[in-house]
Amino acid sequence: MNPERQLIEGIRRASSKTRNPALIRGIGDDCAVLRVPAGSDLLVTTDMCVEDVHFRREWHPAKSVGHRCLARGLSDIAAMGGEPLACFLSLALPPKLPQRWVNDFMAGLLRLARQYKTPLSGGDTSSAGKITADIIVLGTVPAGEALLRSKARPGDRIYVTGELGGSAATLKRLYSGKKILPSAGDRHFYPMPRLEVGRWLRKNKLATAMIDISDGLSVDLAHICEESKIDGVLKLQTLPMAEMADLNLALHGGDDYELLFTAPRSAIVPRKIAGLPITEIGEIRPRTARKGTVSTIDPAGRLKPLRPAGWEHFGTS
Amino acid sequence: MNPERQLIEGIRRASSKTRNPALIRGIGDDCAVLRVPAGSDLLVTTDMCVEDVHFRREWHPAKSVGHRCLARGLSDIAAMGGEPLACFLSLALPPKLPQRWVNDFMAGLLRLARQYKTPLSGGDTSSAGKITADIIVLGTVPAGEALLRSKARPGDRIYVTGELGGSAATLKRLYSGKKILPSAGDRHFYPMPRLEVGRWLRKNKLATAMIDISDGLSVDLAHICEESKIDGVLKLQTLPMAEMADLNLALHGGDDYELLFTAPRSAIVPRKIAGLPITEIGEIRPRTARKGTVSTIDPAGRLKPLRPAGWEHFGTS
Repeated sequence: MNPERQLIEGIRRASSKTRNPALIRGIGDDCAVLRVPAGSDLLVTTDMCVEDVHFRREWHPAKSVGHRCLARGLSDIAAMGGEPLACFLSLALPPKLPQRWVNDFMAGLLRLARQYKTPLSGGDTSSAGKITADIIVLGTVPAGEALLRSKARPGDRIYVTGELGGSAATLKRLYSGKKILPSAGDRHFYPMPRLEVGRWLRKNKLATAMIDISDGLSVDLAHICEESKIDGVLKLQTLPMAEMADLNLALHGGDDYELLFTAPRSAIVPRKIAGLPITEIGEIRPRTARKGTVSTIDPAGRLKPLRPAGWEHFGTS
Repeated sequence: MNPERQLIEGIRRASSKTRNPALIRGIGDDCAVLRVPAGSDLLVTTDMCVEDVHFRREWHPAKSVGHRCLARGLSDIAAMGGEPLACFLSLALPPKLPQRWVNDFMAGLLRLARQYKTPLSGGDTSSAGKITADIIVLGTVPAGEALLRSKARPGDRIYVTGELGGSAATLKRLYSGKKILPSAGDRHFYPMPRLEVGRWLRKNKLATAMIDISDGLSVDLAHICEESKIDGVLKLQTLPMAEMADLNLALHGGDDYELLFTAPRSAIVPRKIAGLPITEIGEIRPRTARKGTVSTIDPAGRLKPLRPAGWEHFGTS
């Protein structure tokens, strides 16, 4: 049996432990066959993780790489208010990669898949120079109820879950040469998708627009502003900052996978949803002719344009 | 605008020309939103194309790489008897890749997408050392009617569409150093998915099992045998061989993207379906204890085990 075939068989055995009644036929045919529940819309997201761009083997344990890979996709489902249905993995691996690395990567990915009942239902394998993993997550949402980026309206308030900048703070320490032992609760190594909050907001029809913070608050708020054709104003003093994070990391650091959403001014948004703190951090205003769509406002009411400065990947070496 | 964002915007503009009423929200949100027609099962397939593994820049024009990328996914939909619904592309590119290459790649992919009404509905971009494209194709099939690999039964006859070994013959010439000007009709550079034949076979309930020939006849027939728990016997003298191909290439050459299917002995299978020749090439027998599941049979009725020897990728360099 060749190594690719061996990998596929291993994945098939491991993934058969996670079941979802919607999955009629998983790994082992030309396509997976799924039955999307009646009255549901289908959500689809793909996210690519490339070695030395999204992770480094010397910094990130294989289990963390596998976990982060699926967490990114699940976070996109959360940002639509959706329920995960199934995932697919295309995996390109260097021929000399130790089998142990692959086993740990799969263990990290499949543990999160089990936790959120998201069976690994297919994919592809290839050889490559650098580890490249493309994760595809399918989800469902009641028809017409997906929370889009494009429905924020002037007067809406801006909210965020949890704390910001924590993942970037850890990354900054890694860059500075610090050795970090990744613990299971570390948001950089083991981010948890905010599926419960996304579901709650969708069911309670509280949010007008939503996105997950993967690129950084400034960039992701700008996405909502572009798609909704409005401006966003952030009150800096209200930003919930993670331990070790500073304002810069909270504004521009990526990979927090918190949810950023808007709700009408009149909406009563709880201080906690599914156990997670919710913080009001700004408001939506009508689109102006100013360059840029995101500003900060100081306690005196003075606006200052904020240049969206995204998450910097490591760059290819 | 950074290059990745520029690429996404370019894809968004180009892909907006291909419409499918099932696509509610395409590129521009955390997920795409699709409405799968009621009474349909959903098909999902992913295929990864890696530079110097699946193609070489000096051999394959960018348009051909983009075309082949999507054709592989559409061929998997064809092999289930399905209709394409939408596609997604995760694309990792070397920072110094000429923009012209990316434009041509996208042009090749989007032309085929338009032809089969398969809107590009989302994806991801990244930088990478080598070009890596992961294509995800979604399709539909009336509920319960997907043509699986696992339903071949003893007594069934084995059929194949078109001709075999043509793609491998071209590849062999490329390996030998021959310059080849890729023409639009060349099955190596521009393979066409057999969606019309797949649909016809599903509608007429003629096929018991089906697969597309991507790895090579010997390997792909072995997949049907494994999943159906039966043996396959090939009559070598009946194999429809492409011009320039020999028996070895017809048996083991990959990337032909013809359909391989089984049908009951009593079924009347037309000699042509959707204009394409259909050839009977063998039969299904009960599983024996012999090692291996695929054999060849000579005119005197003597069986000889056939070792599935797949498509050799170029290997990573």
